[in-house]
Amino acid sequence: MKRTERIGIIVKTLTDSPGKLYPLHYFCELFDVAKSSISEDLSLADSSIRSTGTGYIETISGAKGGVRFMSSITAEAVEALQAEFCERLRDSSRILGGGFLYTSDLMFDTALVSKLASIFARKFRDSGADYVATVETKGIPLATMVAHQLDLPLVIIRREAKVSEGSTVSINYFSGSYDRVQKMSISKRAVVPGSKALVIDDFMRGGGSTKGISDILAEFDVSVVGVGIAIVSLEPEKKRLTDYTAVLYLGDVDEENHTIQVFPNEHIF
Amino acid sequence: MKRTERIGIIVKTLTDSPGKLYPLHYFCELFDVAKSSISEDLSLADSSIRSTGTGYIETISGAKGGVRFMSSITAEAVEALQAEFCERLRDSSRILGGGFLYTSDLMFDTALVSKLASIFARKFRDSGADYVATVETKGIPLATMVAHQLDLPLVIIRREAKVSEGSTVSINYFSGSYDRVQKMSISKRAVVPGSKALVIDDFMRGGGSTKGISDILAEFDVSVVGVGIAIVSLEPEKKRLTDYTAVLYLGDVDEENHTIQVFPNEHIF
Repeated sequence: MKRTERIGIIVKTLTDSPGKLYPLHYFCELFDVAKSSISEDLSLADSSIRSTGTGYIETISGAKGGVRFMSSITAEAVEALQAEFCERLRDSSRILGGGFLYTSDLMFDTALVSKLASIFARKFRDSGADYVATVETKGIPLATMVAHQLDLPLVIIRREAKVSEGSTVSINYFSGSYDRVQKMSISKRAVVPGSKALVIDDFMRGGGSTKGISDILAEFDVSVVGVGIAIVSLEPEKKRLTDYTAVLYLGDVDEENHTIQVFPNEHIF
Repeated sequence: MKRTERIGIIVKTLTDSPGKLYPLHYFCELFDVAKSSISEDLSLADSSIRSTGTGYIETISGAKGGVRFMSSITAEAVEALQAEFCERLRDSSRILGGGFLYTSDLMFDTALVSKLASIFARKFRDSGADYVATVETKGIPLATMVAHQLDLPLVIIRREAKVSEGSTVSINYFSGSYDRVQKMSISKRAVVPGSKALVIDDFMRGGGSTKGISDILAEFDVSVVGVGIAIVSLEPEKKRLTDYTAVLYLGDVDEENHTIQVFPNEHIF
């Protein structure tokens, strides 16, 4: 097998499973070539991936070491993505009244969502998270993509306890967006006490729901090591939590003049 | 730039956006090389991808043509995946009583789910679907991955109408699993009348919920062109719909002897 073909196989194999460690001998055996050749292949594969601006190959040394693909995104690509996301979000036909916007088409557009996920994968890759947690429903595709890119299990917190979740723990919290007390519920099997979670969601206004996720995880002694939200409303200024990373900020939604103010977060990293 | 590096870039670029068509001149300009060189690069990239058994590069000729990555999975890999999935599902600690099994850890394991998705991507790539539809919650990660691999928008049908969904249409249906009437609701903005949907879900027993998805889509004159379910219970034998593709079949769940019968579907393709 030629080097050209080997490079393609290495890139496809590693990027299919972001974060998954492959020992070098995996590729030595696959191609039946020496370690020195594989090292050269890997360096070429790494430079290919880097030039796409979508990640890199990391080498972990030691007996349990190997190589793995880490998903990332360049500052330039983040800016372009924010510009596209802003423009699509500004479309005034999204205005539903009561300050609500229709955003399901964006949150369920997997091409957009997989790129948004790579922002959070880059931001939180060293957070030490054991899980990616979200509360149903609209943030699930984004959380799924982040979990995949960081090679972490996904935890989906439900609105209602379900028979198929086994024993659950539930909490009540106040949602400012809906102006009422809401419930969330998590399976006792979903997390290991003492672990760490990265919280991902599609939207945050006052932070009640995001804080709720923190609170329910705290019931299991699970600490939150990062919060990534696609769209954060500027109002109310005072949120129920302070430490979060937004991709975009949502400003004034003017129902009369059909305008939506949207701003990119220029300080993601 | 050397050919080895170009191959890596082509593989990464195409596989990052499955199904997305790239005109040949995109790569000609990116690398500043002639079309003939790119054609040769693409043929090498295609052979690399094929030898991983995870897909291939398709060439669409004509003025609006180009190349795209199509996700797939070999018969061998399907078998290995089914064996792994069976073994994990057979774990008797999943038994919750009342015939229910805890499967969230499997359905929220994105490495497993992305491979399951490639089975459905292969099965339904020529179905002509315009959307991938599911009903919340547990099938969403799988449906997200299928939508991504087929480059289709995702439609998530909700259990309750939400303000953030705008005008919705709701239906009631009978769920045999829960032995009661349940509701589902879809935003009027989510689908275009007359289009086609592929239905993806994590589990089916009697088919009430899957049939419900069909029925609510029919309210918008959206026809179902395929149904893919990760786990289908053998009981009841008579389902509310006949045309579906399972990855695994769930047989007897014996609470007394702590055994779970699981069988791979040997006729997926």
